[in-house]
Amino acid sequence: MKFVKNDQTAVFALGGLGEIGKNTYGIQFQDEIILVDAGIKFPEDELLGIDYVIPDYTYLVQNKDKIKGLFITHGHEDHIGGIPYLLREVNVPIYAGKLAIGLIRNKLEEHGLLRSTKLHNIEEDNVIKFRKTSVSFFRTTHSIPDSFGIVVKTPPGNIVHTGDFKFDFTPVGEPANIAKMAEIGKEGVLCLLSDSTNSEVPGFTMSERVVGENINDIFNRVDGRLIFATFASNIYRLQQVVEAAVKHDRKIAVFGRSMESSIRIGQELGYIQAPKDTFIEPNQINRLPAHKVTILCTGSQGEPMAALSRIANGTHRQIQIIPGDTVVFSSSPIPGNTVSVSRTINKLYRAGADVIHGKLSNIHTSGHGSQDEQKLMLRLIQPKYFMPIHGEYRMLKEHLKLGEACGTDPNNSFVMDNGDVLALGKDNAMIAGKIPSGSIYVDGSGIGDIGNIVLRDRRILSEEGLVMVVVSINMKEFKIASGPDIISRGFVYMRESEDLINEAQKLVAKHLDKVMERRTSQWSEIKNEITDTIAPFLFEKTKRRPMVLPIIMEV
Amino acid sequence: MKFVKNDQTAVFALGGLGEIGKNTYGIQFQDEIILVDAGIKFPEDELLGIDYVIPDYTYLVQNKDKIKGLFITHGHEDHIGGIPYLLREVNVPIYAGKLAIGLIRNKLEEHGLLRSTKLHNIEEDNVIKFRKTSVSFFRTTHSIPDSFGIVVKTPPGNIVHTGDFKFDFTPVGEPANIAKMAEIGKEGVLCLLSDSTNSEVPGFTMSERVVGENINDIFNRVDGRLIFATFASNIYRLQQVVEAAVKHDRKIAVFGRSMESSIRIGQELGYIQAPKDTFIEPNQINRLPAHKVTILCTGSQGEPMAALSRIANGTHRQIQIIPGDTVVFSSSPIPGNTVSVSRTINKLYRAGADVIHGKLSNIHTSGHGSQDEQKLMLRLIQPKYFMPIHGEYRMLKEHLKLGEACGTDPNNSFVMDNGDVLALGKDNAMIAGKIPSGSIYVDGSGIGDIGNIVLRDRRILSEEGLVMVVVSINMKEFKIASGPDIISRGFVYMRESEDLINEAQKLVAKHLDKVMERRTSQWSEIKNEITDTIAPFLFEKTKRRPMVLPIIMEV
Repeated sequence: MKFVKNDQTAVFALGGLGEIGKNTYGIQFQDEIILVDAGIKFPEDELLGIDYVIPDYTYLVQNKDKIKGLFITHGHEDHIGGIPYLLREVNVPIYAGKLAIGLIRNKLEEHGLLRSTKLHNIEEDNVIKFRKTSVSFFRTTHSIPDSFGIVVKTPPGNIVHTGDFKFDFTPVGEPANIAKMAEIGKEGVLCLLSDSTNSEVPGFTMSERVVGENINDIFNRVDGRLIFATFASNIYRLQQVVEAAVKHDRKIAVFGRSMESSIRIGQELGYIQAPKDTFIEPNQINRLPAHKVTILCTGSQGEPMAALSRIANGTHRQIQIIPGDTVVFSSSPIPGNTVSVSRTINKLYRAGADVIHGKLSNIHTSGHGSQDEQKLMLRLIQPKYFMPIHGEYRMLKEHLKLGEACGTDPNNSFVMDNGDVLALGKDNAMIAGKIPSGSIYVDGSGIGDIGNIVLRDRRILSEEGLVMVVVSINMKEFKIASGPDIISRGFVYMRESEDLINEAQKLVAKHLDKVMERRTSQWSEIKNEITDTIAPFLFEKTKRRPMVLPIIMEV
Repeated sequence: MKFVKNDQTAVFALGGLGEIGKNTYGIQFQDEIILVDAGIKFPEDELLGIDYVIPDYTYLVQNKDKIKGLFITHGHEDHIGGIPYLLREVNVPIYAGKLAIGLIRNKLEEHGLLRSTKLHNIEEDNVIKFRKTSVSFFRTTHSIPDSFGIVVKTPPGNIVHTGDFKFDFTPVGEPANIAKMAEIGKEGVLCLLSDSTNSEVPGFTMSERVVGENINDIFNRVDGRLIFATFASNIYRLQQVVEAAVKHDRKIAVFGRSMESSIRIGQELGYIQAPKDTFIEPNQINRLPAHKVTILCTGSQGEPMAALSRIANGTHRQIQIIPGDTVVFSSSPIPGNTVSVSRTINKLYRAGADVIHGKLSNIHTSGHGSQDEQKLMLRLIQPKYFMPIHGEYRMLKEHLKLGEACGTDPNNSFVMDNGDVLALGKDNAMIAGKIPSGSIYVDGSGIGDIGNIVLRDRRILSEEGLVMVVVSINMKEFKIASGPDIISRGFVYMRESEDLINEAQKLVAKHLDKVMERRTSQWSEIKNEITDTIAPFLFEKTKRRPMVLPIIMEV
């Protein structure tokens, strides 16, 4: 990093700026790089068929000898999902809280990377020291236990990374360590990197405790079976459902792979506590009266393969909706999922269930602090320089305004893009340069083999379909040996469009005869002639522009 | 309709029940059918490439001699968009208010159907009499001028259809005729069909007047250019922007085809009033100082081809974002559009504009009444039987609860599906049977030629792509004449996956040699052999399941 001076600390992101997800941050002083988080991002709809998106790790590969460790703020996928991909390129020791370590261990085992990776379980009062830098922690509240903010001590000054946070004063787990944050602030902070997710939301985020009370109210008033859908990773929520069920003398059956493993890990690590016989096997639910049954399941985002969607569709092997069932969406739909969530709700109503959902029911709260919490963080940490992180551009911008309102000099605030490098001296800061950054698509087992051309083809195929013109040509005699045949997929229903296809075929055949007379032996020319003949014809007849694929075989 | 008795009135929907859109209702007494609205629906994402969805008109075609007229409640696409498709199958006179007539005229002209169609301009006090039934109207408020509710007098009793409505007591145009509604109620109503869209929203919908005040505030405080994006059909909103611009001595340039035609029709019919020189040509905006310019444009839903998206992308020919620009989204994103709207907002911020959007700014209000307005309608009309219409199943169900709260007997309320026929006698009502109903897909100029097979192919193609195996076979000698060649689209980037493709090719070639030895002349068998060889291989190597298409040419 030539553009950063020897007495400056560099701060950069490979993911997490101008987007929600793939959070991956670096803090570098000379030859020591501290990494914070390694997340994935779930693709937006136009990334057809892509499973998820990871950052471009080029800079880390080129500087792998400098990386001292990967420090994980908490165990959500957008903060730990990239670890297996990063480890394939760079072996680096991982430091994380207890729950995150549990989740990462699972993940590494699946990828066969557990034995080759050093995992360190950190506690809040640990200090991890390197030659020039050191790393310490402060407890925050978020929608998953063991969430930490991270302080990186570097010679020019301390860099604070909040991770995801809110200030829940009545949390279900341990409270945030506000005193320690104030101490860190008092000691002096050169730069604050702070979570911007809810910077457009005024006020304070509702406490998880209130959600618990409302869940309890539902248990109070419902007599039939209760089917609870929520995010599997929200262990606090699961614990609150468990507590309400125990209090109301109901048993709990768990459905959905990620929910099962959350309950298991949560119990192993002591986050989920319940009397021994609280959980029952799936096949036991029909042996109990309705008012004794709680079903805890995945699918609160309307994911088509999740337990709740199958229940709604009537295709779940063990659960059918019966009169008196109440389904609770203890969640809010992620923007891209509103339609599929709505569809699931409609199906559940149709199947005869009552459904409790939506903001008015107060059965869900965000894991991220709203504007006033972001301001509280700014007031506690009192940074000299400020860099909003985690969020779309609009959210970073809004967070900047909050910083300004709390006395941060706008000239000392930096809304950056992934790859931008902020060079921080004792008394100076500037975006000094850029390192490689970008999105790598993971599809099946392929990493980075799907690019824009493949995605463009998928888009055309998805909207207009494909028409193939297949022809064998005898290139010695310039004669058509067989064909042209027309085959289509995703274009029209062939049986009902026979006339159209026959007409197109005749048109191409006639035109090819002429082409043959010219004695062309350039395949590309023949292919273009075919496309230029059939594409306008099909557009005129159907007002559609399918992908046209001429296939020529030489015999 | 054999299942409806001779002294009963049948009420049914071909669209609009359990869905938002394609509103199409029928009220039939003996041999007289009154149609209410003929809308389209915009397809959900999984209907890949489909332009829009219309109802199945089979029942109307079979009973076309009975149809007395099509009565339009208002001029929105989900109420008039199906007219050209309906008219192709059934010629029927159309009755509508002034603005709707203007919009329908435009539409019929485009489709070459204007000359063959009888259009009747209705006023609120008109009564259209047929032999056994008659139709009258009452003015409502909605997000487009000239919105009417419809009363169909039939021998067993009066049927009231609200159309889309809210009760805006301080509207921009004419107020709703509450007195007439009360009179209709007093006279006696057998069945009420009432708009359920906002049945999940408590309270009263904000008045359009409040939106106007907030728009005016924005004009007060912004010095730079103002770029307003809103629904082109919301003529009231356009008029409010025009008034604010005139008041603040700004000129208006209009961008986007639908916005231009709305402004033109609105002015022609007198709904949009402005001093002569208010509107300027697009090329004049750069000649005026920023504080004199208002830009009114389409794209408030993030539609990729609309004016605002092109401005945000920097690809608009006439408008580039300059510092000081403020973009106002006077709209709220329709559920499926949240992500694309968010993307547009981010891009505008990045380009340097300030952006005003979202619920907190109060610069948009719904056209549909909330719970208390739906209750007011129920109290005014006092129906004996109640049928919630316009909305997803969950909304219809919620509306039912509101009806119950207002004293409607739940046994006299009917949540129906499209195609269900409600048979109404003087003192009895039941869902008596079903007529054909369903969704017809319109893609390009094709109506109904895209079915589930084509959509399934499009989905596979979009997520996994396509692999073709092309081979010429000499069927006399059972020898491969040429190939097998492997071609793919949307699967992997071929140049970077040469090894994979070569390996697949060898595998198929080797297997085909064996098949030839068996002297099979069954093409389907050969095709299956190819698919069964290559598909597992590709899945093992890539964890993807592309569509495999074996193409065999006989030579």
